[in-house]
Amino acid sequence: MARKLKLSVVLLALQVLFLILFGVFFTYAKTPATVVRLYSYFQDVHVMIFVGFGFLMTFLKRYGYSAIGYNLLIAAMTIQWASIVNGLWSMLVMEGTPADHWGFSIGFIVNMDFATATVLISFGAVLGKTGPTQLLIMALLETAFSQVNKWLGLAKLKVEDAGESMFIHMFGAYFGLTVARILHNDNASENKKEASSYNSDIFSMIGTIFLWVFWPSFNAALAHGGDQERAILNTYYSMAACTVIAVALSVATDPKGKISMVHVQNATLAGGVAMGTAARMPIGVWLAALVGAVAGVLSLVGFQFLSPALKKLKIHDTCGVHNLHGLPGIWGALVGALGAILAGFEGWNKSMYSIFPAMIPEGADWHHFNHTHHPVARSAMEQGGYQLLMLVVTLILAIVAGAITGFVMKLPIWDSPNEDHLFDDSEKWNMAEEGVEEHHSNNANSAGHHELDAKV
Amino acid sequence: MARKLKLSVVLLALQVLFLILFGVFFTYAKTPATVVRLYSYFQDVHVMIFVGFGFLMTFLKRYGYSAIGYNLLIAAMTIQWASIVNGLWSMLVMEGTPADHWGFSIGFIVNMDFATATVLISFGAVLGKTGPTQLLIMALLETAFSQVNKWLGLAKLKVEDAGESMFIHMFGAYFGLTVARILHNDNASENKKEASSYNSDIFSMIGTIFLWVFWPSFNAALAHGGDQERAILNTYYSMAACTVIAVALSVATDPKGKISMVHVQNATLAGGVAMGTAARMPIGVWLAALVGAVAGVLSLVGFQFLSPALKKLKIHDTCGVHNLHGLPGIWGALVGALGAILAGFEGWNKSMYSIFPAMIPEGADWHHFNHTHHPVARSAMEQGGYQLLMLVVTLILAIVAGAITGFVMKLPIWDSPNEDHLFDDSEKWNMAEEGVEEHHSNNANSAGHHELDAKV
Amino acid sequence: MARKLKLSVVLLALQVLFLILFGVFFTYAKTPATVVRLYSYFQDVHVMIFVGFGFLMTFLKRYGYSAIGYNLLIAAMTIQWASIVNGLWSMLVMEGTPADHWGFSIGFIVNMDFATATVLISFGAVLGKTGPTQLLIMALLETAFSQVNKWLGLAKLKVEDAGESMFIHMFGAYFGLTVARILHNDNASENKKEASSYNSDIFSMIGTIFLWVFWPSFNAALAHGGDQERAILNTYYSMAACTVIAVALSVATDPKGKISMVHVQNATLAGGVAMGTAARMPIGVWLAALVGAVAGVLSLVGFQFLSPALKKLKIHDTCGVHNLHGLPGIWGALVGALGAILAGFEGWNKSMYSIFPAMIPEGADWHHFNHTHHPVARSAMEQGGYQLLMLVVTLILAIVAGAITGFVMKLPIWDSPNEDHLFDDSEKWNMAEEGVEEHHSNNANSAGHHELDAKV
Repeated sequence: MARKLKLSVVLLALQVLFLILFGVFFTYAKTPATVVRLYSYFQDVHVMIFVGFGFLMTFLKRYGYSAIGYNLLIAAMTIQWASIVNGLWSMLVMEGTPADHWGFSIGFIVNMDFATATVLISFGAVLGKTGPTQLLIMALLETAFSQVNKWLGLAKLKVEDAGESMFIHMFGAYFGLTVARILHNDNASENKKEASSYNSDIFSMIGTIFLWVFWPSFNAALAHGGDQERAILNTYYSMAACTVIAVALSVATDPKGKISMVHVQNATLAGGVAMGTAARMPIGVWLAALVGAVAGVLSLVGFQFLSPALKKLKIHDTCGVHNLHGLPGIWGALVGALGAILAGFEGWNKSMYSIFPAMIPEGADWHHFNHTHHPVARSAMEQGGYQLLMLVVTLILAIVAGAITGFVMKLPIWDSPNEDHLFDDSEKWNMAEEGVEEHHSNNANSAGHHELDAKV
Repeated sequence: MARKLKLSVVLLALQVLFLILFGVFFTYAKTPATVVRLYSYFQDVHVMIFVGFGFLMTFLKRYGYSAIGYNLLIAAMTIQWASIVNGLWSMLVMEGTPADHWGFSIGFIVNMDFATATVLISFGAVLGKTGPTQLLIMALLETAFSQVNKWLGLAKLKVEDAGESMFIHMFGAYFGLTVARILHNDNASENKKEASSYNSDIFSMIGTIFLWVFWPSFNAALAHGGDQERAILNTYYSMAACTVIAVALSVATDPKGKISMVHVQNATLAGGVAMGTAARMPIGVWLAALVGAVAGVLSLVGFQFLSPALKKLKIHDTCGVHNLHGLPGIWGALVGALGAILAGFEGWNKSMYSIFPAMIPEGADWHHFNHTHHPVARSAMEQGGYQLLMLVVTLILAIVAGAITGFVMKLPIWDSPNEDHLFDDSEKWNMAEEGVEEHHSNNANSAGHHELDAKV
Repeated sequence: MARKLKLSVVLLALQVLFLILFGVFFTYAKTPATVVRLYSYFQDVHVMIFVGFGFLMTFLKRYGYSAIGYNLLIAAMTIQWASIVNGLWSMLVMEGTPADHWGFSIGFIVNMDFATATVLISFGAVLGKTGPTQLLIMALLETAFSQVNKWLGLAKLKVEDAGESMFIHMFGAYFGLTVARILHNDNASENKKEASSYNSDIFSMIGTIFLWVFWPSFNAALAHGGDQERAILNTYYSMAACTVIAVALSVATDPKGKISMVHVQNATLAGGVAMGTAARMPIGVWLAALVGAVAGVLSLVGFQFLSPALKKLKIHDTCGVHNLHGLPGIWGALVGALGAILAGFEGWNKSMYSIFPAMIPEGADWHHFNHTHHPVARSAMEQGGYQLLMLVVTLILAIVAGAITGFVMKLPIWDSPNEDHLFDDSEKWNMAEEGVEEHHSNNANSAGHHELDAKV
């Protein structure tokens, strides 16, 4: 098989497999009805996955085609693959008949977009250092592992993770960092192509801002009523506070007291990550803002001090996902555990049982609160313990899964980039001809214009 | 009249005409109430028209102002003109009192945005080769013709075309290609300015991605309940499958096995076009994904093999609308016909009558299913025949109307671009002064910076 | 305190203050329930504030980081500060218990985004001529003043201003112009860096188009039912008409008959501003379109003739906010006054009392129409008079508040930019290394490529 056709063959084989599995197993869900309430949240999340993550990664001056193109390709593959993994998994291990699980609905595709986010976070850690076939292999394995982790959390440990600080952000970050460690290449560490240009920095801000504005929808998409409104408000104020702190510390930690675009592009979003687990909890807006402010501190400390340290450990994190998703994800998980311990305090009311169904007392009419969980009658302290346990489980599973995946990706059968083409589109993409000389400008008004246009 | 003022005079005259006609005929619709359910779909479609189509066409390195600027101008004119055409047309030929037709509502403006999409597709075929006044003339005539075609389909042939594979995509594409044939200019065929730059390719991806994420809303906007949820799900999976196949074939058909941005920008969207007619039909997600996969194949075959052939026939298609809208539109229409033939099979239930009101049996309480159609009691096979008939009608009408319009546009009284300014903003736009030398940079930190900034 | 840390200290101090005040005073609103209906409007407005305003201001070729970065920073600060100002203000002066006012809800955060818009308009007037700390000071003072003005309008003069032509657009514009006058610097008036590049003009269009498509949501966000649908329709047609006229006059007033991007970027939006006050009124779509068309005329006249005149008066308006927000805002306020005078004419029905609660007759069951206002029984003519009075109050208050704020900003204790760094990111931002020479391109396919990439 010619090297050049690897990507084609893998993509075609996967798509044929997906078509067969869709045909054999799936139907439309029996009870649609979710469409009116959920669809605008779905669309906000959809914009985050394709526009937000895609453009956020266009910050490298020579890797823009790959950033936005691979993001689209991987996401288009992963939403299909995650559909199959989820249907299969839920049929194998969860309650109900097969028809309950192999059913498409708006709620289902929100979760497919969520599953894709996990992979795109890991993509950020290895951006510029992998070929597209390698990325597809990563997406296939990571999706299987991440959905097992999420199932452990929801079905077994019965934890709350509304905006998925653990299931998505922590998992994606530590999985990706482990892959980056295993694929480590000395040429990637000090590479002059790993830099932004003025325009690529602004393209990247398209991603940042769309992620920023729609993050409340991400954290609130699958909540209901008052829980949903709180998730929106908590995330809104958390992100605002995080942004103020991130810029303050970008200046304070810079030798010349200047602001860095990398912080504005990334650290300003840490408040959304950190508010994930506790999004629905009635912790009060002041605490939500504090959670965001601390996330901003953690993210800046990560960028300025931890990333250089990780680099010495041969963990080269292209997009800084440790600072945007890893540390703020852990912080969000801790906040969630603390929130669980405080459950039942003033202001919780019935939300306690909708958020932590495992706390529903035995003998209670638990169907009233939650249709899918039986009463377990955990105490608040116990629930907090389970939340912490899930933090640890996620960390371990992400690293183990990342290691396995990294070794598979390292096999010399894929399409890892030529040493000379790290952070460089030109090996895999037909390039625009902006470098070709042009001698026929007709614009008499601006001398030198023709020379220029060729370079814009 | 000075040549330079043509555009001004045409625009002012049209706007005065619109104001008078709005004042004489239109009122707010009597039964608003559509706002809550429809408005978020409207907004998604609105983003597609203005952001999606607008940025998709910014891929030419010297034609970005025109792409995004003319898109805005033509759309702003066409939503008004289409309002008048639709009001007039529905008053003349359809049932009900005048007040039913000259009424503005959210549902009405969704249809106005749809009408505009048709024109913007044709704009893609002639991008870079026409002046703005010519484009306005095209928009005026095309809108009148396309609304007749849609009326024939809905009111006379009683066909289903929820996402308008025929009414919008096929019509816009074959109309635009016919105009391009008639305006053919040898200088346009091999023009060095018809090329992208690195940045213009990424700007274009803004359009692609927003079209990609909101296409489910386009196909589902005017459906209801379960039909609407199915339209969303079918389109979501169709687009995912199409994207995977489009990239696979971009690599497979490239001599060096590289991916081309033009395919990522365009062919990835063919799954949305192809799912248009059958969007609401309960064909199963596996078939929806197959429809998208085939659309990806057709689009790639179009770009790699058909476009060069068309060029020899003097049909120069700047944006490749034949590959994104033409071929996938025909494929979508065929899928719709096949869907109609299969209507009544398992899973259809009552959707059969909401989707194909002409199949409502005589004697049935048809008001229950559909308020605007009388029972005709077509068989599924007959409905399929009518769907095929509409495909042919659309093709013929688009080509005839495009020919008439092309000859009007070719009249030497408009503002067709100077031969030297094909694919070039500078004839009609005041250009940014980035070409002017600058000698007063104050940035001591980066030698050579001043020379650069002037060129960024 | 080192000069470089000023921004950090101000930001940290403000965020700590916000956390304390949130903790002491605020709770979640008692009656959420607004989430389903309002949230998609909120998100549209949120995109306008962060994407729309942010990218609109990236048109300067060397000030893109600052435009998009300060926009995010100021907005993140202002939504928190406005929350406090509003809570405090409504507690001090309006009816009800404290708990009614210090409550977060979706409706509340829509208003916080609105308050932020006011500040971002003023930012446009001083773009490139202030440091970030100065901008924060401006945002703090302006928000306090603008909320007083809005309170005067709503609670005291009981005027209608649904899309806030007066409260937001006029206030933001005249406040900003006054600040610009006071900060006047001769070096800013004829500065070669105050120019766009080809790419910066297209980046700016991202802002324009998102503002354009979501403006109907802005004007309709806080309306209900039929009033809301009318606000959407009026704004949709007003913007379309304005765009047609703006382009017509851009050509007509240009010496060479060319279109200018600055007009496409800004004047096309004037129809949304002008439709603000009267958005909910049943004035008929033809009149809405006429309002937009006149706004287009005013905006173009402003750009071509008034802006140069203002410059001679030492009022240098970087973004042309006078032409986009000032003049069209006054025009919108006048239209609103005229609409009030016509209230009660055919088509108004019950909307008269939901729009103008002060017109509810004494003895009427006013709770039926409006829960927060007592009947005053104004005549339509009186209501029109109050609308005009509010126009004058807004103008005076904006100018007085702008003068006070301008003098505070002029104090030499802040971070006004070095004379050499007007309209230049490089003083406050770490710049991308695109100016550094690169001699190690590996792309054998394109000669000269390496020289280029460094400059893209």
